[in-house]
Formats: sequence, structure tokens, C-alpha cells
Amino acid sequence: MTREELVQQIHIKKSCLCIGLDTDIAKIPSFLLDTDDPVFEFNKIIIDHTHEYCVAYKPNIAFYESMGPKGWMALEKTLRYIPEHIFTIADAKRGDIGNTGKMYAKTYFEYYHFDAVTVAPYMGRDSIDPFLEYHNKWTILLGLTSNPGSADFQMLRTGDAYLYEEVIRLSSEWGTPRNLMYVTGATHAEKLKSLREIAPHHFFLVPGVGAQGGSVEEVMKAAGIKGETGLLINSSRDILYASAGEDFGQAAQRRAAELQSVMSRYI
Amino acid sequence: MTREELVQQIHIKKSCLCIGLDTDIAKIPSFLLDTDDPVFEFNKIIIDHTHEYCVAYKPNIAFYESMGPKGWMALEKTLRYIPEHIFTIADAKRGDIGNTGKMYAKTYFEYYHFDAVTVAPYMGRDSIDPFLEYHNKWTILLGLTSNPGSADFQMLRTGDAYLYEEVIRLSSEWGTPRNLMYVTGATHAEKLKSLREIAPHHFFLVPGVGAQGGSVEEVMKAAGIKGETGLLINSSRDILYASAGEDFGQAAQRRAAELQSVMSRYI
Repeated sequence: MTREELVQQIHIKKSCLCIGLDTDIAKIPSFLLDTDDPVFEFNKIIIDHTHEYCVAYKPNIAFYESMGPKGWMALEKTLRYIPEHIFTIADAKRGDIGNTGKMYAKTYFEYYHFDAVTVAPYMGRDSIDPFLEYHNKWTILLGLTSNPGSADFQMLRTGDAYLYEEVIRLSSEWGTPRNLMYVTGATHAEKLKSLREIAPHHFFLVPGVGAQGGSVEEVMKAAGIKGETGLLINSSRDILYASAGEDFGQAAQRRAAELQSVMSRYI
Repeated sequence: MTREELVQQIHIKKSCLCIGLDTDIAKIPSFLLDTDDPVFEFNKIIIDHTHEYCVAYKPNIAFYESMGPKGWMALEKTLRYIPEHIFTIADAKRGDIGNTGKMYAKTYFEYYHFDAVTVAPYMGRDSIDPFLEYHNKWTILLGLTSNPGSADFQMLRTGDAYLYEEVIRLSSEWGTPRNLMYVTGATHAEKLKSLREIAPHHFFLVPGVGAQGGSVEEVMKAAGIKGETGLLINSSRDILYASAGEDFGQAAQRRAAELQSVMSRYI
């Protein structure tokens, strides 16, 4: 998907909501457990109820991987079920040397046909380049994450900057605002502003809204790009598990609609 | 596998060789392509011919993942085929927030029964802890990698140290030499000595011998631990693709035996 197509969807839906499909077999309502593929059935109902309110879905690969080959089959079916105009992100956080990076890029862009994949920066440029080489595909590099451990290394000072700032500054020369985005954790809204100065034109994927505590308004005010929004704001558990009962689809829909309604004020 | 068991195998075989199973369907001798599962058939022949000379196998997960569910099935069969006393490493370089990290740990330790998994440090302690919680399992954290991109972030100065030194120094307090190892690239043999000072008791997994250019002797002299060796030295492509013909098993055996013979002088 091109940047123009993504921005168009954001304007049409007045939403920059990304829904994280962190589908955990241990949290799926029990009535689905008798079906052939409970993970896919759960995702299907979530997608049916939320696709009007979001512009992206982000399957969290760990949850599928942990189930062995049948988890990957559920992922494949889920990808095919997501409507064409919705941006798809493999939340995989991969990163390895060139010849291995190529294999990861092939997995997500060629085998599963994702629009985007999240990548870890630690191994540097040749671990990221294989993803950037794909036309109209996106690399979403970890900048600042939303977990407590982000303080351990990302916030180390290196010269005049934090490591996460240096990661964004340097890598922004490797890709362009048309093929590279950044993960920037919403639990640090005050830091989003300074990141927007370092990368004024790149989309930010902002996790940590909801279960992890960030606020949609704060994020949109701090890091929006005028006319393009430039943000994908993610919510996972808050939407997926809004109800543990048979009405989980409706509950997810209400939560997604609430978030979309807040977003619409800034788009 | 416990540390004592691993050290015992190193002494019995006079080898600290780890063979990377970066099995690439595009490089497999063509006579295997007609079989039901060429990747598994290739691995089987490699294992048959090399298991006497190595103490560890390290499947590179990207190569299996890129083939979809059937790649994971080949991985599962490969794992079952590796003799019990050989240490197994999932070269996965995973790393994500706590609840997702748990899923990755579950994948490699519970579903596939690996002894160890490689993990990326960027997201900090709560992304690593879920792996460290398993009894008699190992986390192998990226310290200094052997690719050109290691210069981009790993070698940034942070305070008085390089980032990779700080990663090792800080994380060595999270695990112990009985459940935590480090990836330390062999193309920087001069740096291995100083890393051994920072982490005197932890095993190092050293990639980059062979195709990537490092020397076994240099590594063993620079970073060995007296009486325990404390090293797993990896070779992948040099062994797997020593011949492109039907004799690839024998060629792999010769190459593995050569490396083991060099190692035996220092064990």
C-alpha cells in the first residue's frame, strides 16, 4: 500500500486506529474452543465488528508462532480475511544479518503478503535494508517502545542524544517517509514531540494506548502531521478482550468506535 | 541442558563446534528436491555426517519461517532427529514486551523443546526475563554481532563504554552463567578479550567463523574459559554448502572434522 492510499483511508474513516490481533488461545471465549480453528474464528468476529473503525490490523506474530504450524495457518487465513483496503502489519520485531534478513522479509512480504513488518534496530543497517528493498512495502523500526525495559538501553545517552533518538535520526537516512515508519511508545507522550522534530515526515506506529496506559488525545496533539495525520495508534487487549462472553464482538466494536470517535476530532 | 552437561560434551568431543542449520531451499542439492521434505532430508544428512564433531546445532529460524507452515514442520522433524546429548539453539533473535516475550519463550522452549534461543536486547529487561524464567534453558543475548551493521548502534559510545559492552554488563546481572550466554562476533577478535573481562564466566556463542571470516584459533585464545572452554563457535554455510553435489554430507563432515581438530588443541 502506498502512503497516499494509507492517508486516504485515514481521511475516509476519520481514524488512525490500528487493532493489534494478539489473539491468545487462553483468552478466547470458551464457546469458540470447539471450532476447528478458534484463533481464526475469534479474529473473524473481531474483524467483522471493527473493520469500519480502523485502518490497520497488526497480528502479533508471537501468539501465532507459539501454536506451531497450525498457528501460522490461522495467521494465513486471518490475512486473507482482512479487507483489501486495510493496512496489515506483521508485529514480528525481526532483525538479523543480511542473508537472514532477506528470509524474514520474504516471509512477511511474499509469503503472507503483509504491507508492513516491525523490525528491531540493534543489528544495524544491513539487517534493515532487505525489508526496505520491497516496493510499496513498509518497514516499521523500533524507536522508543512502551515497556518498562525501554529505560534499560533505549534511554542510554549517546553523545548529546538518547539511543532511541540516534536510532531514528540515523535510520531515517536509510529509508524514506514512503517506506519507513517508527514504533514510538505512547507512554512517553512528552517524548513524542521531540521525536516528531527528528522525523517530521515519517509515520509513527504508537502502541501502548489502552492496557499500557497512553492517551489518544495526547498522542495526536503531540505527534500528528498536518493534513496526513502521520500516525497509526494501536490498541490490542483493550479491544480484543473488552468482553469475555459471547458478546465479545459487540464489545470490541464499542471500544473501537469510542477510540475512532476521539481520533475523528483531530483528523 | 545444564552447564555441567554442556561442558562435559565439550570435553568428550574435544569440540565447541556449533553448526548453524541455515538450510536454504535454493541451495539444497537438486537430487533432494523430489523428496517430500527436502529441508528435513538435507538436515538429516548433515546431522548424520557431522554429529560426532559438534556439540550444538543452531537452526536459523528465518529459513524455516520463510516457507510457511511446512517450514515449521521441517524444523520440528529436525529437532526430533538431533541426538539427545547435543545442545540445540533456536537462532530467532526475538525480543518483545513481557506478555509477548512469554509467547516466544513458550514457542521455543515448550513447543519445539530447544535448549536455547537467541534474543535481541533493544527492548530491555522485561523482554528478556520471560526466557530466563525457564529451568535448565538458556537465553543467548545479542552482544556484539559480526555483520557490518554492528557498527551503527552497537558501537556507539555510551558513557565510558560501547553500547554492546553496556548491554553485556547490565544484562549479566539479570541472568547467571548457568542460564545466559552472549552472541559475540568473531570478526572482532581483538574485542573478544575485553568482553571476556566484562563477562568472565558466561558462555559466548561466536558466529562469523568461516563465510564471515573469523578465525577459530584467535577466538579460542582470546575468549576461552580455562577448564570449561566457555565457547560455542558457530559455522553455517561453510559446512552446509561445502559441496553442491550428492557428496555434500561427506564434504560437510570433512569441514566439521577440520574445525573440530583445530578446537581440540585448545580443549
